[in-house]
Amino acid sequence: METIYLDNNATTRVAPEVVEAMMPYFSDLYGNPSSMHSFGGQVAENIRQARASVAALVGADPSEILFTSCGTESDSTAIKAALAASPEKKHIVTTKVEHPAIKSLVEKLVAQGYRATFVPVDRQGNLDLDTLYKSLDDETAIVSVMWANNETGTIFPVEEIAAQVKKRGIVFHTDAVQAVGKIPIDMAASTVDMLSISGHKLHAPKGVGVLYIRKGTKFSPFLIGGHQEKGRRGGTENVASIIGLGKAAELAGKNMAKEVLQVAALRDRLEKGLLQIPNSMVNGNPENRLPNTTNISFEYVEGEAILLMMNELGICASSGSACTSGSLEPSHVLRAMGVPFTAAHGSIRFSLSIYNTQAEIDFVVEKMPPLIARLRDMSPFWADRPR
Amino acid sequence: METIYLDNNATTRVAPEVVEAMMPYFSDLYGNPSSMHSFGGQVAENIRQARASVAALVGADPSEILFTSCGTESDSTAIKAALAASPEKKHIVTTKVEHPAIKSLVEKLVAQGYRATFVPVDRQGNLDLDTLYKSLDDETAIVSVMWANNETGTIFPVEEIAAQVKKRGIVFHTDAVQAVGKIPIDMAASTVDMLSISGHKLHAPKGVGVLYIRKGTKFSPFLIGGHQEKGRRGGTENVASIIGLGKAAELAGKNMAKEVLQVAALRDRLEKGLLQIPNSMVNGNPENRLPNTTNISFEYVEGEAILLMMNELGICASSGSACTSGSLEPSHVLRAMGVPFTAAHGSIRFSLSIYNTQAEIDFVVEKMPPLIARLRDMSPFWADRPR
Repeated sequence: METIYLDNNATTRVAPEVVEAMMPYFSDLYGNPSSMHSFGGQVAENIRQARASVAALVGADPSEILFTSCGTESDSTAIKAALAASPEKKHIVTTKVEHPAIKSLVEKLVAQGYRATFVPVDRQGNLDLDTLYKSLDDETAIVSVMWANNETGTIFPVEEIAAQVKKRGIVFHTDAVQAVGKIPIDMAASTVDMLSISGHKLHAPKGVGVLYIRKGTKFSPFLIGGHQEKGRRGGTENVASIIGLGKAAELAGKNMAKEVLQVAALRDRLEKGLLQIPNSMVNGNPENRLPNTTNISFEYVEGEAILLMMNELGICASSGSACTSGSLEPSHVLRAMGVPFTAAHGSIRFSLSIYNTQAEIDFVVEKMPPLIARLRDMSPFWADRPR
Repeated sequence: METIYLDNNATTRVAPEVVEAMMPYFSDLYGNPSSMHSFGGQVAENIRQARASVAALVGADPSEILFTSCGTESDSTAIKAALAASPEKKHIVTTKVEHPAIKSLVEKLVAQGYRATFVPVDRQGNLDLDTLYKSLDDETAIVSVMWANNETGTIFPVEEIAAQVKKRGIVFHTDAVQAVGKIPIDMAASTVDMLSISGHKLHAPKGVGVLYIRKGTKFSPFLIGGHQEKGRRGGTENVASIIGLGKAAELAGKNMAKEVLQVAALRDRLEKGLLQIPNSMVNGNPENRLPNTTNISFEYVEGEAILLMMNELGICASSGSACTSGSLEPSHVLRAMGVPFTAAHGSIRFSLSIYNTQAEIDFVVEKMPPLIARLRDMSPFWADRPR
């Protein structure tokens, strides 16, 4: 059975060009970039090139790119650095729909004595900017707002928010792991202070990430040890994966415009087909959205049951974030949006990539209606639905 | 020119078997192990196998193995977890010869208000156990002592120390990144609470590490986010590298006994050859030592100059740790041992692996005496040496 992979917001296939770029760094160019000998030194030079490629993708200076082990580490590093920079400030502003990498961390900080504002969203997942701006005060150490939501694809007006937050002299961070590589991002034209990137969301391998840190931002390292990354992160560089991320960034920069059209067209085709199913609806802002994502609720059925039956057909998707799966609670994102329980429970996130084909989409559009119908036949909620 | 790589304590070649094991996880089995679909689920199963292989190498239960991004992260995680477990205890005990991953972290904690005892070593690099035990008090939150020194290869009696420390009810951690895979380690027969492993020191790739956490040890995560690693480390698993580390652990377990003899014989041949050079000496305990390491001082010459000339011949070694290179200070390890400056400045660490051959060693033994003689001819210190 072939796999139809529509779960690219969870993780992506590593691009073959990326694997090829990484290969020499395992058994041939395996030197330590910190070593005095040229066997290590050449590796340091190649890391410099990868750093420049990543910087180019987001309009940054290479010196503003810090390599980390993942998006979660980038997020933790940003929040902790901002709090350390202003130890007297005890207020954090974020949103109700962040990824667990921010949500769980801020909840833990609250347990340790910090105060947090979790800004709400409306029924379409749009951020309540008024509440956000009103929450800012002299105690606010950092505002962290994701660039695009991992579950719905809804894009927040991050640059506009950053500009307002910066006027108040407050540090602004964005978890942009779902946005980078999918939509154009230009740090040179923005006032965002710190931005998190995850390699495995853009066809680089798992286990590598980036924190963009604008020049002049007060910083203290999260991982303390050797002098690597100019003293901003201890630990031997994850060389092969950094090289891979550089190549993935290069590919994303080159192909984004074309890919966005191609992927969005497939997404729209999928969405249009699935909305033919009765009692189905799109969650999130249908306009201001990542080109690869659609989150669809099929009322009166369980998302986990839908996924299991899709799995039997080789179709991979998800209900909520992979990082919160295993929980039987409906997604905190959909709950924050006020999606009714009957719909939130039956929501499926389809997230595409350039590796998807029209034939795959047509297969899914053909198979889903009878699948949902079968589940509804077994559902007491469907029989009892208000009509 | 061929490379003769004698810098395996800095980093190692990834074993071809390890690369082979990793390959499928980039472009074929790229699912997220947290996903609901079986495309991700099979990856979770393969991670379980890798965890069991790593556990077997150190005599641990698989549930005691936490995958991290590197040895430095493992060290930080251990120290921070122990301090969080006993917030009222403000004293840390470690040694004067730790890797920067511990040394810099503890120095930073001291700047934040913690008290630390840095236990000294003698001229051979042996730990002053008396000072260590006397330093323990009711305020001591953790004792962290490396298993084997990265610069000299000197092995500390970690199991003996752990037993004494545990009698006092204090948490014991060891940075074992240089020991694991080179000498037998059995957690089932020890009382060590936490132990750090680095993948790239044992022929797995850079960017993956392990923290062993004994069952029942109070733990709080360093990296907060998703539910991965049973809630002990947020962030999508670095799948390919974890699989690679599992394979490397399997190979190390299978080959250690044989390799130790083979590598130690080459190391001894190298050492014997190099000690023919006048005014040369081995640093560290010549008996109780890693089988692959020798640290040799060539008096009255500069280590950096030696390395540069060795580099011209394709020979890779190091002066001190790669993680402290770039500094013109002589190694903090040799200074702690009381090695005279004239010798400490001219010290070179040779660290071997199973990939080294006798022909390589003989080449080095042939080339080094004239190289040192040439440098000494240019050295005013050599001309003025006491005779």
